Amino acid sequence: MRNDGRNQKEMRPVTIKTDYLKHPEGSVLISVGDTKVICTASIDDRVPPFMRGQGKGWITAEYSMLPRATQQRNIRESTKGKVTGRTMEIQRLIGRALRAVVDLDKVGEKTIWIDCDVIQADGGTRTASITGAFVAMTLAFEKLLKEERMKEMPITDYLAATSVGMHREHGAILDLNYEEDSTAEVDMNIIMTGQGKFVELQGTGEEATFSKQELDELISLGESGIKHLIEAQKQVLQSL
Amino acid sequence: MRNDGRNQKEMRPVTIKTDYLKHPEGSVLISVGDTKVICTASIDDRVPPFMRGQGKGWITAEYSMLPRATQQRNIRESTKGKVTGRTMEIQRLIGRALRAVVDLDKVGEKTIWIDCDVIQADGGTRTASITGAFVAMTLAFEKLLKEERMKEMPITDYLAATSVGMHREHGAILDLNYEEDSTAEVDMNIIMTGQGKFVELQGTGEEATFSKQELDELISLGESGIKHLIEAQKQVLQSL
Amino acid sequence: MRNDGRNQKEMRPVTIKTDYLKHPEGSVLISVGDTKVICTASIDDRVPPFMRGQGKGWITAEYSMLPRATQQRNIRESTKGKVTGRTMEIQRLIGRALRAVVDLDKVGEKTIWIDCDVIQADGGTRTASITGAFVAMTLAFEKLLKEERMKEMPITDYLAATSVGMHREHGAILDLNYEEDSTAEVDMNIIMTGQGKFVELQGTGEEATFSKQELDELISLGESGIKHLIEAQKQVLQSL
Amino acid sequence: MRNDGRNQKEMRPVTIKTDYLKHPEGSVLISVGDTKVICTASIDDRVPPFMRGQGKGWITAEYSMLPRATQQRNIRESTKGKVTGRTMEIQRLIGRALRAVVDLDKVGEKTIWIDCDVIQADGGTRTASITGAFVAMTLAFEKLLKEERMKEMPITDYLAATSVGMHREHGAILDLNYEEDSTAEVDMNIIMTGQGKFVELQGTGEEATFSKQELDELISLGESGIKHLIEAQKQVLQSL
Amino acid sequence: MRNDGRNQKEMRPVTIKTDYLKHPEGSVLISVGDTKVICTASIDDRVPPFMRGQGKGWITAEYSMLPRATQQRNIRESTKGKVTGRTMEIQRLIGRALRAVVDLDKVGEKTIWIDCDVIQADGGTRTASITGAFVAMTLAFEKLLKEERMKEMPITDYLAATSVGMHREHGAILDLNYEEDSTAEVDMNIIMTGQGKFVELQGTGEEATFSKQELDELISLGESGIKHLIEAQKQVLQSL
Amino acid sequence: MRNDGRNQKEMRPVTIKTDYLKHPEGSVLISVGDTKVICTASIDDRVPPFMRGQGKGWITAEYSMLPRATQQRNIRESTKGKVTGRTMEIQRLIGRALRAVVDLDKVGEKTIWIDCDVIQADGGTRTASITGAFVAMTLAFEKLLKEERMKEMPITDYLAATSVGMHREHGAILDLNYEEDSTAEVDMNIIMTGQGKFVELQGTGEEATFSKQELDELISLGESGIKHLIEAQKQVLQSL
Repeated sequence: MRNDGRNQKEMRPVTIKTDYLKHPEGSVLISVGDTKVICTASIDDRVPPFMRGQGKGWITAEYSMLPRATQQRNIRESTKGKVTGRTMEIQRLIGRALRAVVDLDKVGEKTIWIDCDVIQADGGTRTASITGAFVAMTLAFEKLLKEERMKEMPITDYLAATSVGMHREHGAILDLNYEEDSTAEVDMNIIMTGQGKFVELQGTGEEATFSKQELDELISLGESGIKHLIEAQKQVLQSL
Repeated sequence: MRNDGRNQKEMRPVTIKTDYLKHPEGSVLISVGDTKVICTASIDDRVPPFMRGQGKGWITAEYSMLPRATQQRNIRESTKGKVTGRTMEIQRLIGRALRAVVDLDKVGEKTIWIDCDVIQADGGTRTASITGAFVAMTLAFEKLLKEERMKEMPITDYLAATSVGMHREHGAILDLNYEEDSTAEVDMNIIMTGQGKFVELQGTGEEATFSKQELDELISLGESGIKHLIEAQKQVLQSL
Repeated sequence: MRNDGRNQKEMRPVTIKTDYLKHPEGSVLISVGDTKVICTASIDDRVPPFMRGQGKGWITAEYSMLPRATQQRNIRESTKGKVTGRTMEIQRLIGRALRAVVDLDKVGEKTIWIDCDVIQADGGTRTASITGAFVAMTLAFEKLLKEERMKEMPITDYLAATSVGMHREHGAILDLNYEEDSTAEVDMNIIMTGQGKFVELQGTGEEATFSKQELDELISLGESGIKHLIEAQKQVLQSL
Repeated sequence: MRNDGRNQKEMRPVTIKTDYLKHPEGSVLISVGDTKVICTASIDDRVPPFMRGQGKGWITAEYSMLPRATQQRNIRESTKGKVTGRTMEIQRLIGRALRAVVDLDKVGEKTIWIDCDVIQADGGTRTASITGAFVAMTLAFEKLLKEERMKEMPITDYLAATSVGMHREHGAILDLNYEEDSTAEVDMNIIMTGQGKFVELQGTGEEATFSKQELDELISLGESGIKHLIEAQKQVLQSL
Repeated sequence: MRNDGRNQKEMRPVTIKTDYLKHPEGSVLISVGDTKVICTASIDDRVPPFMRGQGKGWITAEYSMLPRATQQRNIRESTKGKVTGRTMEIQRLIGRALRAVVDLDKVGEKTIWIDCDVIQADGGTRTASITGAFVAMTLAFEKLLKEERMKEMPITDYLAATSVGMHREHGAILDLNYEEDSTAEVDMNIIMTGQGKFVELQGTGEEATFSKQELDELISLGESGIKHLIEAQKQVLQSL
Repeated sequence: MRNDGRNQKEMRPVTIKTDYLKHPEGSVLISVGDTKVICTASIDDRVPPFMRGQGKGWITAEYSMLPRATQQRNIRESTKGKVTGRTMEIQRLIGRALRAVVDLDKVGEKTIWIDCDVIQADGGTRTASITGAFVAMTLAFEKLLKEERMKEMPITDYLAATSVGMHREHGAILDLNYEEDSTAEVDMNIIMTGQGKFVELQGTGEEATFSKQELDELISLGESGIKHLIEAQKQVLQSL
């Protein structure tokens, strides 16, 4: 039994509240246990300079935490005057993952801005961000379709993300909370599609290493979590 | 009749949801119409260098908006690498206002960090922030009292803020929404205590001017709004 | 009697030296007691991006202090790499105030850059800046008229600013010097036109509050100061 | 046959020139094909604030490219005034990887600064940096041992990194050059120890996805590359 | 005859107004023709970290221009968020030059902050800054002696600076104004002591070169200018 | 005898390795004793905004050191977020010097980017950079001529730089190493052409002064060093 009563293969409760804010084209509040993230998708009718004139769209993501999303208050990145390496890594990951399931040619010369703002953190903020951002993006595309600003749904598959880890006490565990994330020896983020293909796989030994057999065990556990998350997405999305 | 159906002297519906987040010592989600702000109060057992050794506390505030709190997406200040003048002005205002109703000697050498994060904006974000921050701060002090980390409640009075304005069409109006804020000729923010004393008064003619008589009319309207807000605060706070 | 021998309702000596520098279109050295500010107005034949194509002008202001304008040397903002919140607040205030007495349509697509550089500070630097900047701006417009780069004088009224405060010992006082500014319980900046209309009113209780009656007393004292300052402006300006 | 004449399972020629610079405690020039990186290890007898008093060491890495290491000249990060997300990601990766094969308790309160400066780039700069940095770090530790500033060699295993990818034309390929890196559909960086354990695994579908079977194929190819690299390291290092 | 009526060997009129500001320990307004610089010297009873514990003093300088000191308005360095290369070069030059005529051991652990703020520029701002800063620094040291915060005058000699140049039309000329500075082929700044020794010599061919004979001619002209400036300094300083 | 066995008038061994990197249009690795600098020249078919439409070229330089080029590791300027004053001074010097021997009209609207990256430092890095950059730039121009992207060689003369100094123990010495540079009382950088004309002369008394006679002695010593360096350049360059 884990510190919050779950067994090794159990995810925390997931809820996805759609249309959470009134201004963005798409928005959700996703909760995975005590981790809560507001994900919004905003449509901009321009693309960045390096994309102009190609008739293709672009998807870019930003990620941030409220200062007191965490147990200790963090200094705002706006106050520091710079974005940390961790934030940049997460932002690049979210954008890259979403682009893998979108046919950018069908989007046309538009930028989809994804904003993931963590209002409460308890581990797995980056994977919750990806899972929620996929829904916010889909809602935005649905709106564009309804308004006839786009001809075809450009999304090619579902997309969700979860974390798995190798824990000294519990072995391979699914969906790590903050406490577990801090103590796991191996930490892996898995992003997969509805068809069960990998989009991204990032496994890290935290001052530790792992074998091929452990890798296979973690991947298999991750796959089961992804299926569960995509079920939750399907319940709030009709059009795909 | 105003664009949202209110009369000139009417505020928008106000709700204050306490203990909104699990980590901060005090937190609320305040809604004033469609304006929604998460206000948190965090306790730090140190004071800034210029305050050390005086045995007094300090209160400081930060304010931010989610990029898509507004109709058009705003660039994050962390991305720009600097905090705008508008944000700094609001942060200084919130901190100054709260300090006016707190006996800092009773706080002891602690810093109260106030964070106001606007998740949806429809005018009056700075006044909603002050009104909500007062409640979050009070909750944090109650927690310190309960944990015996503080001897006496240091708050000396209630505190709330609202906006009033002079509108070409409607004359003097209370609690401006975004639409009204953009078109008002005179815009005034009023911060008052439960005893009806002024803490701060900021009246600005936007490419316009105003007379003493108009000033008096606006102030009187503001007072009625403040009373209403303090009623709402009293409903969620018991200890004061 | 105040610390510099004045009575409560007395301003410090005011001098405005016009055409202080040779390059700017308009320039003054204004002294209010020991507070000395160089104010210049520069004409730029472009407007900022958000104003282009409207045929209107724009007025923007910058404010700074020499590092040793004050008793203790201050670190330069260029060295810090950022402009402080206080400076931004003052810059925004100066620009907003000047725009209230200028018909920007008559200016045409030009930017008036106002620079207020405090070379010696003894309280009231922002109000002296506004009072001096109004004269520098007027001189610049006169030059444009003389050179036929503008058809009509766009200034609609005189504009001056002063401070008033509520002092524990002296009660309501006019034109606070540095010593008084540090100890006043209520501090108010008043910006008014030649016609006696308010452009901006900013009253702040410094860890204190104030009543409506005190507000009225302060405003009335401020009005008398503004009249005095506008007299001084009229002596150096002929054209208005 | 690949564009540089190699077969799918072939690495580019690897050379590691030790003691390349005279000042650093450890330094190498590593070449992997046309990719050339200067890796240095510097010993600092302090640890960062968050590590003080624990008696443990720390390893941190920085990565940079000469502006003309690439086909097009890049703007220096010092000129931009900020480090890009890509650089931060690589720096964090190098430091994390090296820490996985060092017993930090044996290092004592010292920081090992790793600097990887790419002087010529042709794909695989981050993996070459890790492979070279491991040697530079080992040389630095050997120097500390010789000077009796350390009691025991803290390195627990060899460490090397390589890239593998899934290429439309060639299928699974080892050690991608720049041309291949730009066109590969799946790109994976693998960091492994001398014992064949994983330290880090990062697989990314570039606007593409990959199956478990493809993952297994890539991993197996990566393992063979790592073995080859560790052979090259063993030839220049005696003490391990 | 030069564009302002001078002959080749003639300086512009020089005036040095002492005790120009009330707060700094030493201050002057120096005018060299239309170039006007406020120079102040501030005493700080600490030294920078790299000097601590040596019992020696330090002298450091900052230089800036008001935005409209020049014909075209310049963007403030505080607004840009960074100090330009030109400013840094001048700051380093001023500090280095002053340190050459001060016995830092006699200063004790104090920092002398020199601030040179150009309020009007017409060529030669850096040399006027040095000449004025020497006087401001001397006044500050005199004040320290009078207040018995220092035992002996640490200044070892007078110090002044001027510019000379090689001009296509006029040949070798002394004390270049802005117009001449822009068109000179060779530009040289000379800093010398009262004893006629060089402290710094910087000669630059602006897309041109110069011979040893031209160098000797320029140096000789510079020496005569320095003598004149030191005369002006002697008239306002008694103690040396 | 100097600390490295040289006599006063002796330079350290100089080697210039051409075509050191594969991507840049021109590149060298220059060694002057233990000082090693990679100099590259990159051609950009645009000029900076202030040069556009004049049909002329521009030459600009950047200079940097690897963090561990020196005995103590230096913090990267990209990490600090700003370029130091010393770096800016050197960059401006390199660019200015090279422009003095190039007919920019013959270059056409192109920018030559010079990058000087010090990989090992032992004094004289800025003069080695200039000497090496001249060769890299010449190689780049030769390439443009060969590819018929330029009609005529725009270089008007050879260019090299060296340092000389006045040393307490050794008197006037040529080509100072790091040890000597730190202890010299007078430090002078001399940049000259193949024809023996000065391009730049910077002599500084480090908390010391120097006479005209000493200046002449230093210049004469510098001239002999420059001749030696230009010989080395001629051996690797044919076309001039």
